[in-house]
Amino acid sequence: MNYTAEIVAVGTELLLGNVANTDAQYISQGLSELGINVFFHSVVGDNPERLSSAIEIAKGRADIIITTGGLGPTLDDLTKETVAGCFGRKLELHKPTIERIMSFFERIGIEPTKNNERQAWLPERSVVLENDWGTAPGCAFEHGGKHVIMLPGPPHECQSMWDNCASPYLRKLSDAAIVSRKVKVFGMGEAVVEEKLRHLMDNANPTIAPYVSNAEVMLRVTAKAANEAQASALTEPFVEMIRDTLGDVVYGVDVDSLEKYVVDMLAAESLHLAVAESCTGGLLTKRITDIPGASNVFDGGICAYSNKVKSAILGVDANVIDTMGAVSSHVALAMAEGVRRTVNTDIGIGITGIAGPDGGTDEKPVGTVFVAISTADRQKCLHLKLGVDRRLIRTMAVNYALDLIRRYMLGKLDAM
Amino acid sequence: MNYTAEIVAVGTELLLGNVANTDAQYISQGLSELGINVFFHSVVGDNPERLSSAIEIAKGRADIIITTGGLGPTLDDLTKETVAGCFGRKLELHKPTIERIMSFFERIGIEPTKNNERQAWLPERSVVLENDWGTAPGCAFEHGGKHVIMLPGPPHECQSMWDNCASPYLRKLSDAAIVSRKVKVFGMGEAVVEEKLRHLMDNANPTIAPYVSNAEVMLRVTAKAANEAQASALTEPFVEMIRDTLGDVVYGVDVDSLEKYVVDMLAAESLHLAVAESCTGGLLTKRITDIPGASNVFDGGICAYSNKVKSAILGVDANVIDTMGAVSSHVALAMAEGVRRTVNTDIGIGITGIAGPDGGTDEKPVGTVFVAISTADRQKCLHLKLGVDRRLIRTMAVNYALDLIRRYMLGKLDAM
Repeated sequence: MNYTAEIVAVGTELLLGNVANTDAQYISQGLSELGINVFFHSVVGDNPERLSSAIEIAKGRADIIITTGGLGPTLDDLTKETVAGCFGRKLELHKPTIERIMSFFERIGIEPTKNNERQAWLPERSVVLENDWGTAPGCAFEHGGKHVIMLPGPPHECQSMWDNCASPYLRKLSDAAIVSRKVKVFGMGEAVVEEKLRHLMDNANPTIAPYVSNAEVMLRVTAKAANEAQASALTEPFVEMIRDTLGDVVYGVDVDSLEKYVVDMLAAESLHLAVAESCTGGLLTKRITDIPGASNVFDGGICAYSNKVKSAILGVDANVIDTMGAVSSHVALAMAEGVRRTVNTDIGIGITGIAGPDGGTDEKPVGTVFVAISTADRQKCLHLKLGVDRRLIRTMAVNYALDLIRRYMLGKLDAM
Repeated sequence: MNYTAEIVAVGTELLLGNVANTDAQYISQGLSELGINVFFHSVVGDNPERLSSAIEIAKGRADIIITTGGLGPTLDDLTKETVAGCFGRKLELHKPTIERIMSFFERIGIEPTKNNERQAWLPERSVVLENDWGTAPGCAFEHGGKHVIMLPGPPHECQSMWDNCASPYLRKLSDAAIVSRKVKVFGMGEAVVEEKLRHLMDNANPTIAPYVSNAEVMLRVTAKAANEAQASALTEPFVEMIRDTLGDVVYGVDVDSLEKYVVDMLAAESLHLAVAESCTGGLLTKRITDIPGASNVFDGGICAYSNKVKSAILGVDANVIDTMGAVSSHVALAMAEGVRRTVNTDIGIGITGIAGPDGGTDEKPVGTVFVAISTADRQKCLHLKLGVDRRLIRTMAVNYALDLIRRYMLGKLDAM
């Protein structure tokens, strides 16, 4: 059977625009991986009448209703009683949960309040989804052919519980096993990727769908079969066809991000890295150190926002800056080599450019960026033209720098 | 009259989780500033039947329906015909719009396609909302007491058109003028802020509402009156009361962010800054350089992820690192002073700590962070305990560093 799902987010903070509904985004991706159609999202405030009406509407148009939010300990948090009420169910105290909550508070050394007990009241005859990332448990039940899953609202809790509790629960509803692979692409635009893969895009099983984020393309290959091994076997030839067709712009399969790929690969090769950034202003450093364990391969980053720092710390010749300009391949290469020598590391990266909105000239307009790599035996500089949007220019420049490191380690620097 | 609004986002990419619904977040903030209640958001795909049903539901529960998305040139884009149909209206070709679209394409030097003409077909008797940020115009009409506004989906276009077209349109619906001020707070948790301001929270005009994001609290003070001057006059005493009650944790009113405040204040005082980061890994540098024009006050940042960099570039005594530990007030202060001297600047910041998930000990658990400032005449170090979440630890540590700079410039370092 082909299920349809609706995500009902509960929280006045969403209606006030305090936060974006990233839980719905995350869960939608997960439902898509499970082959479950999502036709609607709704958002409703912490108000029992309006929440009831939203649930009644969802009952009429979806097989699976997933709520997020409103499971906390305060009086505002009324998702459980309201949703249970829509299905004629009462709440009952769940003993193991109350013990779990108490031991959680003991562990973090905080005194629980009376209100925390409210979190242990759950709809009768429901499956408790244990929350290892906070105090509010989720729950799931089936009623008259409709499946209801309730998850907490804080994104870290909601997303962890989706991965570990809700997604496995829904997987069991289906006879079919679903396997989904993510093919990650950098250095080719979505339009070109789609053009090259047009012959695969209409395939029914596995399906192939492109997504764009952070200036990268991700292709999701999703197969359905009687069991996981068969589904997995269906995906493999398609993943290979995509690799063959797109070539080495495919940087990995089921890899989180370029920075994760680079940190893992540096660790595997026991190589160390240092970077010197100008226009990207610490963004490359920040993205590398977002990865837990980056300290094993990353020695440091110099954000040389002023020419003074470029010369004094990185040893870039002030004459070169004067004659070639701070935004030039000469300076990018000198920064890459300078940071490598100063920090005494294996790989140095240098980035200099004009991120805008000001500072552009006819010769070097906003979006002009030079990204260079320096190692003991190689050096290379890319001259990029990255449009006019400051945020996008910085993101793209960092992506290219990470890709330079990847290509160096693969011995493919010359192919760029 | 008190209007209620519903935001209906149209786009299969939202239901697939390709993007988060940031348009709804942005517009919700704007509606809240206008004093218009938002009780529901909905998201629906590029499907005329389901879009019609969502519009019918919205008609039954809101006075104002704002749609986002589905105004593009392709066949998927059917918001205008579908929504107009729900109100018994036809589309008609809008001549000035077709000329506008053609001249837009001429300006960017791209040949328009036949499809682009579709964008000039708008619901009859509607107000055209011109799009200066893309090709798809928006529109607005009133029908049987319901107001309908349609905006394009790409966030940059949608948000610019909200600010410049839709918000002014809605403002005219009301006889009252609305003025909203944002009081920005750092260094006091939401619960304490609410406790201290409890006596103001139930006020009817202006209203006072707290929001939390990026580990800061923002208080929105919104007043309604016959004209803007009167509304503005209503807000002033409340802004002052908040300042008086909370004291110098209030860092500004209508200021975007701590980093924007610090960059502006450094520029006003002609002071220069350099930073040395360990556990925050470039995040402070990145946030400062997010601000256009930061180059006027920011000389550079050293991300000293390894002890090698702390010693070689910042001149931190290796013996101090060995005896006191890399995570210590001694090292934070030495980093702050080291970066100030190395870069030869006015203010140096040093940050060292344990962002986790690994690296914690009983004595220095994950979340232990030292943030130091060094100037020619002053130095100070904060010892922080910032919980267990890596992302939050890094965000909070950066906020504290920016706040140290602010307090130094205000001559309030001793009050911390």
